[in-house]
Amino acid sequence: MIQKRSVAIVGTGNVGVAAAYALFNQRIASEIILVDLNKERAEGEAMDLMHGQLLVGNVKVRAGGYEDLKETQVVVVTAGVGQKSPDESRLELLNRNAEVFDSIISDLDKYAPQAILIIATNPVDILTYVSQKISSRAPKRIIGTGTLLDTARFRSLLGRYYDVDPRSVHAYILGEHGDSEVPIWSQANIGGKPILKNTLLGKPYDKDALNRIFEESKNAAYEIIKRKGFTNSAIGVVIARIVEGILKDEKSVIPITVYCDGQYDIEDVCMSLPASLGIEGIKHIMSPDLNTKEIKGLKKSAAILQQRLKGMDIQD
Amino acid sequence: MIQKRSVAIVGTGNVGVAAAYALFNQRIASEIILVDLNKERAEGEAMDLMHGQLLVGNVKVRAGGYEDLKETQVVVVTAGVGQKSPDESRLELLNRNAEVFDSIISDLDKYAPQAILIIATNPVDILTYVSQKISSRAPKRIIGTGTLLDTARFRSLLGRYYDVDPRSVHAYILGEHGDSEVPIWSQANIGGKPILKNTLLGKPYDKDALNRIFEESKNAAYEIIKRKGFTNSAIGVVIARIVEGILKDEKSVIPITVYCDGQYDIEDVCMSLPASLGIEGIKHIMSPDLNTKEIKGLKKSAAILQQRLKGMDIQD
Amino acid sequence: MIQKRSVAIVGTGNVGVAAAYALFNQRIASEIILVDLNKERAEGEAMDLMHGQLLVGNVKVRAGGYEDLKETQVVVVTAGVGQKSPDESRLELLNRNAEVFDSIISDLDKYAPQAILIIATNPVDILTYVSQKISSRAPKRIIGTGTLLDTARFRSLLGRYYDVDPRSVHAYILGEHGDSEVPIWSQANIGGKPILKNTLLGKPYDKDALNRIFEESKNAAYEIIKRKGFTNSAIGVVIARIVEGILKDEKSVIPITVYCDGQYDIEDVCMSLPASLGIEGIKHIMSPDLNTKEIKGLKKSAAILQQRLKGMDIQD
Amino acid sequence: MIQKRSVAIVGTGNVGVAAAYALFNQRIASEIILVDLNKERAEGEAMDLMHGQLLVGNVKVRAGGYEDLKETQVVVVTAGVGQKSPDESRLELLNRNAEVFDSIISDLDKYAPQAILIIATNPVDILTYVSQKISSRAPKRIIGTGTLLDTARFRSLLGRYYDVDPRSVHAYILGEHGDSEVPIWSQANIGGKPILKNTLLGKPYDKDALNRIFEESKNAAYEIIKRKGFTNSAIGVVIARIVEGILKDEKSVIPITVYCDGQYDIEDVCMSLPASLGIEGIKHIMSPDLNTKEIKGLKKSAAILQQRLKGMDIQD
Repeated sequence: MIQKRSVAIVGTGNVGVAAAYALFNQRIASEIILVDLNKERAEGEAMDLMHGQLLVGNVKVRAGGYEDLKETQVVVVTAGVGQKSPDESRLELLNRNAEVFDSIISDLDKYAPQAILIIATNPVDILTYVSQKISSRAPKRIIGTGTLLDTARFRSLLGRYYDVDPRSVHAYILGEHGDSEVPIWSQANIGGKPILKNTLLGKPYDKDALNRIFEESKNAAYEIIKRKGFTNSAIGVVIARIVEGILKDEKSVIPITVYCDGQYDIEDVCMSLPASLGIEGIKHIMSPDLNTKEIKGLKKSAAILQQRLKGMDIQD
Repeated sequence: MIQKRSVAIVGTGNVGVAAAYALFNQRIASEIILVDLNKERAEGEAMDLMHGQLLVGNVKVRAGGYEDLKETQVVVVTAGVGQKSPDESRLELLNRNAEVFDSIISDLDKYAPQAILIIATNPVDILTYVSQKISSRAPKRIIGTGTLLDTARFRSLLGRYYDVDPRSVHAYILGEHGDSEVPIWSQANIGGKPILKNTLLGKPYDKDALNRIFEESKNAAYEIIKRKGFTNSAIGVVIARIVEGILKDEKSVIPITVYCDGQYDIEDVCMSLPASLGIEGIKHIMSPDLNTKEIKGLKKSAAILQQRLKGMDIQD
Repeated sequence: MIQKRSVAIVGTGNVGVAAAYALFNQRIASEIILVDLNKERAEGEAMDLMHGQLLVGNVKVRAGGYEDLKETQVVVVTAGVGQKSPDESRLELLNRNAEVFDSIISDLDKYAPQAILIIATNPVDILTYVSQKISSRAPKRIIGTGTLLDTARFRSLLGRYYDVDPRSVHAYILGEHGDSEVPIWSQANIGGKPILKNTLLGKPYDKDALNRIFEESKNAAYEIIKRKGFTNSAIGVVIARIVEGILKDEKSVIPITVYCDGQYDIEDVCMSLPASLGIEGIKHIMSPDLNTKEIKGLKKSAAILQQRLKGMDIQD
Repeated sequence: MIQKRSVAIVGTGNVGVAAAYALFNQRIASEIILVDLNKERAEGEAMDLMHGQLLVGNVKVRAGGYEDLKETQVVVVTAGVGQKSPDESRLELLNRNAEVFDSIISDLDKYAPQAILIIATNPVDILTYVSQKISSRAPKRIIGTGTLLDTARFRSLLGRYYDVDPRSVHAYILGEHGDSEVPIWSQANIGGKPILKNTLLGKPYDKDALNRIFEESKNAAYEIIKRKGFTNSAIGVVIARIVEGILKDEKSVIPITVYCDGQYDIEDVCMSLPASLGIEGIKHIMSPDLNTKEIKGLKKSAAILQQRLKGMDIQD
């Protein structure tokens, strides 16, 4: 029997809906199932999308519950809770989100044990780790969106700066998806020409401008939220890209949140490294050649994340 | 010189942003310019989209003003004002929107006189007519999204009912995009088999079920708004489809708001009829063979719209 | 486990290679396996295609044998033998092709019993019937390309004549893929306006011109062969379209060779009727409302095909 | 006025037809015009393609003469002559091809002076140089397909070797498209990890295997010709990619034949270097950081090409 290409999205907030719309417009799946505690909302979004089916081809969109995910191949989790009150500490919020994930992942283990999970809720590295601990599926089948978003921002902004296709800019941001993330300048190049210290595409080397571009990538969320209230468009295409890579068995190398088991001596934490991805989930984790400062940066990212995990109550 | 494929969207509310995201994901344009009175918002949306450029290809997205639209080929207008207070009458609201359009269309005439305009703000038939009166460009270069949205909903819902690709369901909704819209049942068919009175794809003829599907199409907006607060996904792909039809010079026949000049003896009003569309805008307006009841329905749609136009202050 | 989207093509002559190239360029499958008695040729074609992988995405192309098709979901059969000598009669040629198919279908039954088969070798209606008799798989899982090719030609030529998108021209050619094929003029329309007897898109009704267009569709192969030696481009996209419809579970209604079991009182023969198609193969066969002449034409097609089948030695 | 996306292909041999089919299937252009001295053949190919229009969208394909190219934006030249007799020397053949180009380029200068030209006939570096000398258009508007084909082969083969998406393999072949071409091993990497001297994706470093992959890339044409008689599929998608990069103004960096004016002290010759490409043709030529051996290799390529040019009669 031929499988339907079925993708589910748990959580139909701004991010979940953008991911669904990107998948729909790019025709990556044949079926998209929207799951939300707020069933009305999931139904409203599903109706609005399915009304466009005529124009994008027969991509079936519907609202559903976990029990509808038996044939689903990829589940994207964008659900989560926000700060209750200004008094709530970061740790308290984290523990509440871990609780939410405990319930979601258990339901997914029950109804969609074969599916590959993509975690998109923040803090994504922590919640990917938590999900791997909760779930009975192999860690390589639970991926976080991680710094693919930051890398997309970084390369898009560098592309604009140099007036070149971002796909021709080779530059990663690795480590935590957050304040400690690490730009891999030592390898960054366009067409095989290092960005550092070179005049490139007619632009003289300007260290400050480049640092500003990294800062802009890192702080993009703040700036966008200030202007439109939330971020969703870029993360939506990031999710669509990851789903496509899995369903088409592309084995592309992209920076995403994976379980580190010794790369640069980093262990038992989830954060972003370049990894190849296909129908079985993560196939290989790469350890690119980094300079000392970059490795130090990654270790710091790991330490920060491990510190945060230590404070939490995680059920194995 | 080769033209850039440049599309502008005026108004970055939910509909404008969905249209931009659909265009972006489908890679229909090379450049998308977002224009909004609220420049911060347009900038926030542009940033969020352009950060995804790495993943969809070099589609440049940026915020801009009317003065940036000199090379833009298609402008989508989704801007408009909402009800000020429960006291404001429909006519007052209409006149205020006409005023907004007066300003927008004048600016577009000044800066983008060659562009084809797609009007998506409601009441779309009225505002398309108003825009045609204001603008110095030919009426065939100003199109409203009209009942392409209703038709998409109708065919998608019929497709789901019969478990068939909506693209294989041939059925129009014509006339006003609104309460008086007319389902063209007399012609509706799947694979050359009329929907009326036939068992189709294993489903016996059920008049009530079909009428409910039409009602569901007509009232979709209310139902979706009740659930998610607004509608934007389906209209987004509708807009993307119209832009694609123009830029690729497809000359597809689709039901969209056009200036009627005698079809079924209907004159001097804008409403939806099937029309072929290419790089010069509307090429031909079709008058499909309708039954008496359907023609009567279209005339009623026209009368309602003309009545509404009569009450307004329109500057020629 | 997630299935790879795997498609095999048996026969790497001009048609098989065009189908592979269309599938490759449209990225419909993740894996394309080329099978040919002439292994060198299949390898050459596979090498040439796989060298383009960088540019279309990771679509893996390789040469293989039947034993490599265990996970293949759709198999396209384009193989067959040509006339040995001018002395060989049509029936002798047919019997030799049936023998070739006996071997191919048996191998496919052994190695790819779950796959859906698309038969593209001519005479396609006969060979689809023969394949259904030979194979142990259900008839709905063995489809012939049939008059989708003729219909594509017909609508493309009508589209050019009326200067309109062929996708907006609704017109079928049904019955035999060959001399007795039947244009369904009674239903042919553009935008709901019948083509017969109407001025359409500015063109007055011209019966002779329309008949010439049908003749041109029917005789297209002869004309193309005269000019380039063979036909392959249009049939290549026809095959790609059918494969896409299956893998994406689109359930589109398209005219293809199916087993007739009573439509218009036609039985026990394979020829083209509109049918909906998805991941389980044929879902529904439609019987559009035809006029007497058209029904007569279809019955004549059926009689001709049955006559031909009767003369053959078919192993059940 | 909105431009049609119009692409012409001069020469409808195997390569020209594959390029047309790739452009058609990928819907990169709205119009494809086929030009050939053998008008019958161009017509046959155009008919076969246009019959598929229904299924890929309204991409208009037709045969035409140079006088039909007035609105064409990109012209691909695949025409050329082959060896007359085993006695004909390489130089004689070259001079005859230069003569053919003299006529083609003059016609294109007359009828399509604004178009960007893509040269695909071999020896592509020589004929790109010759075309630039003949034509009155700027050199940046005349591009050769160059080593994009070799690079595509190289990366696809490396991708297969490492079981990774070729788009994640960063490796160029530069210089002559031919025997003296240079693999840029010093920069080759996957996910930021150098290919040289590293275990990568589970594969230990194997110098011989890698050298064989380069040799296989370089000699691919011979191997494919031995098996299928000619090469066309990979070069077809290479051409489609270049056309897309131009029409979408992508400014991607790809290795293509450009006029060298001082890179690595190489002057007055055409060969492949990484260059960014958009609607105005070549925007920037890159000089990646190479090791001494690689630079030497490029200089040798240049010397060989210059030597060959010197022997020819080129009309300025």
